[in-house]
Amino acid sequence: MPELRKDPVIGRWVIIATERGKRPTDFPTRTDRVDSRICPFCPGNESATPPEILTLREHGTYPNTPGWRVRTISNKFPALKIEGDLQREGVGIFDKMNGIGAHEVIIETPNHEQELESMSISQVAEVLWMYRERVLDLEKDSRFRYVMVFKNKGVAAGASLSHSHSQLIATPVVPKRVAEELSGAHKYFEYKERCIFCDIVRQELNDKIRVISENDSFVAIEPFAPRFPFETWLLPKQHESRFVKIGDDRIESLAAVLKDCLWRISTVLNNPPYNYMIHAAPHTSEHGLQYHWHIELIPKLTRVAGFEWGTGFYINPTPPEDAAQYLREAQVTSPAPQPVNPPH
Amino acid sequence: MPELRKDPVIGRWVIIATERGKRPTDFPTRTDRVDSRICPFCPGNESATPPEILTLREHGTYPNTPGWRVRTISNKFPALKIEGDLQREGVGIFDKMNGIGAHEVIIETPNHEQELESMSISQVAEVLWMYRERVLDLEKDSRFRYVMVFKNKGVAAGASLSHSHSQLIATPVVPKRVAEELSGAHKYFEYKERCIFCDIVRQELNDKIRVISENDSFVAIEPFAPRFPFETWLLPKQHESRFVKIGDDRIESLAAVLKDCLWRISTVLNNPPYNYMIHAAPHTSEHGLQYHWHIELIPKLTRVAGFEWGTGFYINPTPPEDAAQYLREAQVTSPAPQPVNPPH
Repeated sequence: MPELRKDPVIGRWVIIATERGKRPTDFPTRTDRVDSRICPFCPGNESATPPEILTLREHGTYPNTPGWRVRTISNKFPALKIEGDLQREGVGIFDKMNGIGAHEVIIETPNHEQELESMSISQVAEVLWMYRERVLDLEKDSRFRYVMVFKNKGVAAGASLSHSHSQLIATPVVPKRVAEELSGAHKYFEYKERCIFCDIVRQELNDKIRVISENDSFVAIEPFAPRFPFETWLLPKQHESRFVKIGDDRIESLAAVLKDCLWRISTVLNNPPYNYMIHAAPHTSEHGLQYHWHIELIPKLTRVAGFEWGTGFYINPTPPEDAAQYLREAQVTSPAPQPVNPPH
Repeated sequence: MPELRKDPVIGRWVIIATERGKRPTDFPTRTDRVDSRICPFCPGNESATPPEILTLREHGTYPNTPGWRVRTISNKFPALKIEGDLQREGVGIFDKMNGIGAHEVIIETPNHEQELESMSISQVAEVLWMYRERVLDLEKDSRFRYVMVFKNKGVAAGASLSHSHSQLIATPVVPKRVAEELSGAHKYFEYKERCIFCDIVRQELNDKIRVISENDSFVAIEPFAPRFPFETWLLPKQHESRFVKIGDDRIESLAAVLKDCLWRISTVLNNPPYNYMIHAAPHTSEHGLQYHWHIELIPKLTRVAGFEWGTGFYINPTPPEDAAQYLREAQVTSPAPQPVNPPH
């Protein structure tokens, strides 16, 4: 069973793999090669993965056989384990709990060569639909306090398989970074009685200098103080605290902006590795007026070094205004976004 | 002039290079190759760097010529600029200030092939002496609130030159990570009336399961909740809030433990890239009783991915108890640490 341990000084939790921990010789050599064995995420190899949890598949096809379009499975090497009750325990001055949680993989396409940016908008929408359904299901488990949906693309961004996939991890505590965002949004709300993200969206749509693309429901921007070059945020234009409240109509709209951003980043930066994460208010607390869900997308172009680890400062060599312009200008040759329905 | 910009939600500052910002094609290809041009840090090439600020050199040799043992220069491509007055400014709802600060490079040895772990203890002590003198000097500048000393070794850890060197950056604000540590230590002190790091040292020396090495004045441990496999902390055994208070006698003692840890990590993990950072209380505030300076050393073995970026959680595949055992067992063939004097 993995353990959750708390740093006693700053309160950050870490997940420690206590069984079969990695030995010194287990760390991969520092190359950018992706595994070339038979792909367990390809159709026909369904038996190489844990059984499916939820799948979008063609009528008349059977579970754990080909015929699926989007397939969710448990992670074969989960960071946290689904079985058991939560137990907190002290170890002298330290704190730990057993590593209860869920760790799932969403295989986004049966096509080994296809990336999100080259899918149709309706295909991307099916992936987002799957995120929503899995998060809603896991939120019913009273042991979990947060569900984080994220994607790692490319070895340098942490992916161990190249077949396009996302992941989600449900944790028994609200993560530190999420708590910090909630706290920051709360402080602003107490002072202004407005959502800080709504104010950001308003200012960015007014200034236009950091906007990359938008449609009726969503806007993509380079944030004012990005940690990384070409860091990109996607936000709903209307206030909404939780991603899972998104309706089917606006899922298409989000898919259009997400695909558009990924396409621009891939074009301008020569198909870089990247991560994206859905930031949303936890289902376990009431932050309806104060928090505003969004997606943070970070191409992996620079390396985090000692100064960043020590201070929490980041050094970003590309001003977001310049990055936004490069990404906007990629528009000329971009496939035109499909028209999307306005929100009801 | 670079800009410091503040994330409006969580209050994190970032440094934005507003002049000559990197364009999409400026990011290096993702290989682990270190630059092979003529090394500007080698003796004879002193004119390829900015003039020296402080140098330990042989009698009878001249500034900016060979004959030095440890040489500090301004960074040729500084993240922050030393000239100017601090100006804070609002940009709509956002906050920024001009990027005032200092960014120096400490060239640790004239020998291009030599690493800290293969130096003599007295050579390492000279590097630490240089850290102390430069920090003390920069703390006299009333524009600066913090000075972070750090080292990046290897391309994967963020180094752009292979010749052994450290860096320091003085910032006009107390960095977020430092403020979090001060706040955590303060909360513990309010509750217990003891320094949390002193309690950690006491428990670790008692348990012995996470201790790697120690001498009269310093102890090296794997922390209870490490972010990364083989993350190692070096702490003074006696309470002390600021690194710069270290006396010449204990500099030798710290050099012995630092060299020993680096040697063990290099041996056990096959010379990995790494970062280390000196964490200390800022000179601008009074945390004498509550904070305890230390060095955090992180070998670069894993990649930070979407889950970590989104949550602030870390997944560590090697329990610190196992890592400590691997590093302790490397002792057999380690060069015996030289005897060090006890503190006066």
